[in-house]
Amino acid sequence: MVNIAVLGYGTVGSGVVEVIDKNSDSVAKRVGDEINIKYVLDLREFPGDRVESVLVHDFDTILNDPEVVIVVEVMGGVEPAYTFVKKSLLAGKSVCTSNKELVAAHGPELIAIAKEKSVNFLFEASVGGAIPVIRPINSSLTADRILEIKGILNGTTNYILTQMAEEGWEFDRALKSAQEMGYAERNPEADIEGYDATRKIAILSSLAFGKNVDYEKVYTEGISRITANDIRFVRKMGGAIKLLASSTCEDGKYYAMVAPFIVDKTQPLYAVSGVYNAVFVKGSQIGDIMFYGSGAGKLPTACAVVSDIVDAAKHPNKHIYVFWEPEELPLTGIGNATRSFFVRVSGKRADDEGKIRDEFGHVSFIELEDITDEFAFVTPPLTEEAFDEKIKKVPKVLGRIRLDRKMEEEN
Amino acid sequence: MVNIAVLGYGTVGSGVVEVIDKNSDSVAKRVGDEINIKYVLDLREFPGDRVESVLVHDFDTILNDPEVVIVVEVMGGVEPAYTFVKKSLLAGKSVCTSNKELVAAHGPELIAIAKEKSVNFLFEASVGGAIPVIRPINSSLTADRILEIKGILNGTTNYILTQMAEEGWEFDRALKSAQEMGYAERNPEADIEGYDATRKIAILSSLAFGKNVDYEKVYTEGISRITANDIRFVRKMGGAIKLLASSTCEDGKYYAMVAPFIVDKTQPLYAVSGVYNAVFVKGSQIGDIMFYGSGAGKLPTACAVVSDIVDAAKHPNKHIYVFWEPEELPLTGIGNATRSFFVRVSGKRADDEGKIRDEFGHVSFIELEDITDEFAFVTPPLTEEAFDEKIKKVPKVLGRIRLDRKMEEEN
Repeated sequence: MVNIAVLGYGTVGSGVVEVIDKNSDSVAKRVGDEINIKYVLDLREFPGDRVESVLVHDFDTILNDPEVVIVVEVMGGVEPAYTFVKKSLLAGKSVCTSNKELVAAHGPELIAIAKEKSVNFLFEASVGGAIPVIRPINSSLTADRILEIKGILNGTTNYILTQMAEEGWEFDRALKSAQEMGYAERNPEADIEGYDATRKIAILSSLAFGKNVDYEKVYTEGISRITANDIRFVRKMGGAIKLLASSTCEDGKYYAMVAPFIVDKTQPLYAVSGVYNAVFVKGSQIGDIMFYGSGAGKLPTACAVVSDIVDAAKHPNKHIYVFWEPEELPLTGIGNATRSFFVRVSGKRADDEGKIRDEFGHVSFIELEDITDEFAFVTPPLTEEAFDEKIKKVPKVLGRIRLDRKMEEEN
Repeated sequence: MVNIAVLGYGTVGSGVVEVIDKNSDSVAKRVGDEINIKYVLDLREFPGDRVESVLVHDFDTILNDPEVVIVVEVMGGVEPAYTFVKKSLLAGKSVCTSNKELVAAHGPELIAIAKEKSVNFLFEASVGGAIPVIRPINSSLTADRILEIKGILNGTTNYILTQMAEEGWEFDRALKSAQEMGYAERNPEADIEGYDATRKIAILSSLAFGKNVDYEKVYTEGISRITANDIRFVRKMGGAIKLLASSTCEDGKYYAMVAPFIVDKTQPLYAVSGVYNAVFVKGSQIGDIMFYGSGAGKLPTACAVVSDIVDAAKHPNKHIYVFWEPEELPLTGIGNATRSFFVRVSGKRADDEGKIRDEFGHVSFIELEDITDEFAFVTPPLTEEAFDEKIKKVPKVLGRIRLDRKMEEEN
């Protein structure tokens, strides 16, 4: 019998208990032993619930029980999760977590402790919900050098952008709908300003490149300034707006960013709508690989956690190597990154066309029949810095959105 | 030092040597030890080649060398691969293979020997080239029950269908182009008649459902009867023709088949073109997950093999549990499967419309302006058996293609 303890009986925690209960036979078969939920830690009481008899309020009960070999941390937030996880690892217990804040903030330290103690710190559920992406990067793409990761890593913002495109809604209305559907929190800042996606791309990039990417140094822009008109002009161009999280290795330099991008129809990411997530990985030899699936949700996330529990249970006293050193990976600023920009302008094209061409050279203009007081244009590829300089000289700019490379090539 | 032997120095074999040579540092880091190619077995000579000094012609040299702990079988075909692999496992050596014929024909026996000997029989490269799909099914989707697998598993036929759609070519011309590009073999039967995809879906289904799926019992139809006109009518409907390999578990019954299907634009499989492969996995709790990438090619396939070598090297004397029992999974015939059918007919719609409606009820007709001597129609959902009966009464039928479920719902 493999005894485990679950820290936190919220959405993911109750999902983990449900998945283990439901699939106990097949899980036992894969582990070669039965999984027993010995404790569930939560400050609340759950009278009449399945976990009532195993509920504890004091973490030390778990920490001091040598029978508990795996601790499942699904509380979220950095503290007290960090303290509990660190103590568990130091006590020789493996830890499985869905907590991206914790992994992004303390990943390499916790991995190092796990290694030293010959146990495991596993975090498949911290990125991409049910989509297996951490384990494939860590154990399937081991033979190749990863050059780029690019993905839609936040379901809330993708749902909002999809609703805006499909219903013609403004951002605020789509956000409200996401909140009503339970896809966005009451305080939605972490999602809509891109911070959640930033933590996830920092985790993936650290695993892909082997050194620690500090999520606080990743250039981050959210979607709250995207308007219904942006989406209409972009659709006329044949594109869609997606919040992309990406990192690349080019000529020994590393870049990472989260920002809205315009992607075109030929890109598989174009078709990723609603709360779905997708991650592209480009290897020097394997080419493009994509993983796609439900990026969130109680049971999908719980299944990812349970797959880590299975892995930890199958590897007692054996650390599974994770390619994530504590040394910081220096990120290069995005100022020299070259790309095209979509710019939306107030006024009439005829009035400003000359000035815009003077600044940017050959641009393509986009106009809509029923919006006569705005127009848009797409610049040729230029550096972020050059764009920032030139755009100052264009009057009445309402907004700008970057073009993903593929879209750019076709302009 | 981990000593390995590579059986076969063809396309994949030379790719494996190249990938190990190129990435020796990062591979060594992940394994925690250096990988040394001690032998390469091939009947040919390779004077001046990197493998000249390690080339052997007699398998027994490898078998009898206790230093060789991993045998990499990349010869293809059932024999002598089967004999060599079985002897290697019985001698306590792990085996990594890219050979789908071998895995489909002898998978459970070889897995059982590996288990008994506490070594590993790994075959990530046998399905989907570089796409990590075997390992995710085996180690990431462990917490859920898989209900369905559906995918484009053969790059050659997908390339041919893509060329037919994009260039308007007939099948023969597209096949010739595929042969010229090196995507199809001189004897293309295994690909175009669907046998290759059948072996791959049998492997994936066995892993997903835990019992052995006999590939010879999978209903199989290839693409050689698809015509340029089929594609034109289907395009008018807003669909694309893809050779889909699928298996499902419904009410305790298991179905598996390989056949051309019409998929619609909203399906991610619609956008999978050229030699790319994609696999959908539907779990009872995780929902849909998709894996996408290059389905073949020397280096992508070699990278998948090397990821298995890394895994085998990291688990000396420890069998990684594979959920594939030798017991046969009984497949239910497809006669009772319900779906819509696209039918192309010679003649004028006006002449046969009444008879067709009498047989099938509410059908949708498709006509093309410049093809006046043919028309097509789509039936409502009905069983395969019922369709086979009714279609006999429709004169001058030129061909029929099944509709994938999603497309069907919209008709």
